[in-house]
Amino acid sequence: MSRADRAAGLAAERELDALLVSHPVNLRYLTGFTGTNGLAVLGAGADGVRRFLTDFRYLERAAEEVSGFDVVRGERDLLDAVRAALPERRPVRLGFDDAHISVRAHRRLQEVLEGVELAPAGGLVERLRTVKDAGELRRIRAAADLADEALEALLDRGLHGRTERAVALDLEDEMRHRGAEAGAEPSFPSIVAAGANGALPHAQSRPVEIPRDTLVIVDWGARLDGYCSDCTRTFATGELDGEAAAVYELVRRAQVTGLEAVGPGVTGRDADAAARALIEEAGHGERFGHGLGHGVGLEVHEAPRLAKTGGDDPLVAGNVVTVEPGVYLPGRFGVRIEDLVVVTEAGADVISSSRKDLVTEV
Amino acid sequence: MSRADRAAGLAAERELDALLVSHPVNLRYLTGFTGTNGLAVLGAGADGVRRFLTDFRYLERAAEEVSGFDVVRGERDLLDAVRAALPERRPVRLGFDDAHISVRAHRRLQEVLEGVELAPAGGLVERLRTVKDAGELRRIRAAADLADEALEALLDRGLHGRTERAVALDLEDEMRHRGAEAGAEPSFPSIVAAGANGALPHAQSRPVEIPRDTLVIVDWGARLDGYCSDCTRTFATGELDGEAAAVYELVRRAQVTGLEAVGPGVTGRDADAAARALIEEAGHGERFGHGLGHGVGLEVHEAPRLAKTGGDDPLVAGNVVTVEPGVYLPGRFGVRIEDLVVVTEAGADVISSSRKDLVTEV
Repeated sequence: MSRADRAAGLAAERELDALLVSHPVNLRYLTGFTGTNGLAVLGAGADGVRRFLTDFRYLERAAEEVSGFDVVRGERDLLDAVRAALPERRPVRLGFDDAHISVRAHRRLQEVLEGVELAPAGGLVERLRTVKDAGELRRIRAAADLADEALEALLDRGLHGRTERAVALDLEDEMRHRGAEAGAEPSFPSIVAAGANGALPHAQSRPVEIPRDTLVIVDWGARLDGYCSDCTRTFATGELDGEAAAVYELVRRAQVTGLEAVGPGVTGRDADAAARALIEEAGHGERFGHGLGHGVGLEVHEAPRLAKTGGDDPLVAGNVVTVEPGVYLPGRFGVRIEDLVVVTEAGADVISSSRKDLVTEV
Repeated sequence: MSRADRAAGLAAERELDALLVSHPVNLRYLTGFTGTNGLAVLGAGADGVRRFLTDFRYLERAAEEVSGFDVVRGERDLLDAVRAALPERRPVRLGFDDAHISVRAHRRLQEVLEGVELAPAGGLVERLRTVKDAGELRRIRAAADLADEALEALLDRGLHGRTERAVALDLEDEMRHRGAEAGAEPSFPSIVAAGANGALPHAQSRPVEIPRDTLVIVDWGARLDGYCSDCTRTFATGELDGEAAAVYELVRRAQVTGLEAVGPGVTGRDADAAARALIEEAGHGERFGHGLGHGVGLEVHEAPRLAKTGGDDPLVAGNVVTVEPGVYLPGRFGVRIEDLVVVTEAGADVISSSRKDLVTEV
């Protein structure tokens, strides 16, 4: 069953007559369209209408990319064309993405769709997106492989004595150049954070030299053919004091424990708790201030969540999530280790391939 | 008068008691904050409250970046903290950004702000942003200079025989490396489009070699310290046939005419019409399918517009706009020439410095 048919099935379950898809990521997922101005109307159920709206600038691209939909030309403001694209049956209860449609756009919709009931349906397509198919898994693996190769090349050139920004740029260059003709790019601004900077809850790479004998967090990912990877390693630029080495080992054990907990039927909350327990036992519970992980796909942060709150649904085969515990000692250093994993029928497959024992002298 | 005071003054004019600022670009403009989770509450008028809300992850950054506001710590979902940040006076009529706040966030606001009147106020800060101050102009010029230098380096290595993507990546590398420690990046994905690809209304760089004896559109810009540049040049990779050369010359003349038309008191519509008239006289009016230009600042596309529709307001000193006529012959080639200009009391200053006569053999 096509993605569009599955979305239309969910719409029928929610007693919608049709679904308006507006968020660019959801639109790409359902139709293949990569442009920036498009809308789709899906009639509920497998035999409903499948109409794709765009303006003249993207007609050629839509003809190449979009299949299974009738392509309809609208003006730049596509909202005016929605009424004509609705199923003929009246009355119509139309689901819309209340999490992304602005108040102003909603008011416009109410005007142009007089007599149509607009029903909040945000999250419907996001729910489908949590379970990746074979083609998506292939793309995510390709992005992760590219990112891992880029890291290896980076480490050959060393970390200390260069600025965090120079190292981050070097890593991003490696990803862009290795996937140049495929249009590879970083899936988010790479974080290279040494010493106390690595302890900030939202560290950024600074124009500051990386010293010897400190920990350096590197958090990076590639986007290839629309799909993201996400990985973190923490390196040592020489000798560490006993506590830094101990925290590294603690986070590494918590990360492995988190990986072992991930599997079908396990909630994100339980996976988070398994890794968190080790860190709490070691007295650093307050220093692990974020969730264990998040879904990754067309977006680098998407459902499901592995966290104390919001991780209620059991994981299922096809989910792709990060497992990334961290311990952050303010003013001193931080350690985070993150793998990207696929939930399988049997448990979980780790996609990330970079080594996780403490790498020093880089 | 501070930007916040001016925004609060506009809020008072619209009979709002306070303004909720949520869009990250507007938040950066008014407060200096560069993080991704913040809100500001401005009491109307010069003596109103100035409160800035963020979560624990960004408290340190807010302390460094935000001045003139009381920094208030909220949870990750900052909407819960808005009520406590409102002016004490009741009843409150609170302006919100209806062009960006989602229907779902608006419903949450209605719940947490029971008794507060929510009034649409989208575009209020964007209006202030159209007039750049000296510091903003300096940043935009620095971004444009960086982009121009990157182009020169690119042209030294030639265009033909390389793929469009390789050339685009090379140009972006030049911008990133020249401004590495300042965190320079492309302000949008660079467009390198040869031959018929240059005639597409929304061309993308392809993994396809640039041949000899064709036209190549290069549309690129840098973002430096938050501010964008935007420029386009069209090059020839050898001999052109007579029509291509004639169209180039037509667009060049239309571009100069557009530049001459830009000045204080002139509407965007009139500036557009001045350049468009030449192209229409030459019989290519239908082949100039976009507006003459747009504002540039913290965003690469912002107000004001230079176009047939939406260009109603007279330009004023401090506006920064593009002037970018184009002619696109489907299946054959396109020509676009774009400068970035500052509207001054006397007329307009061109910021872009790359030459505009037809450059061949590159």
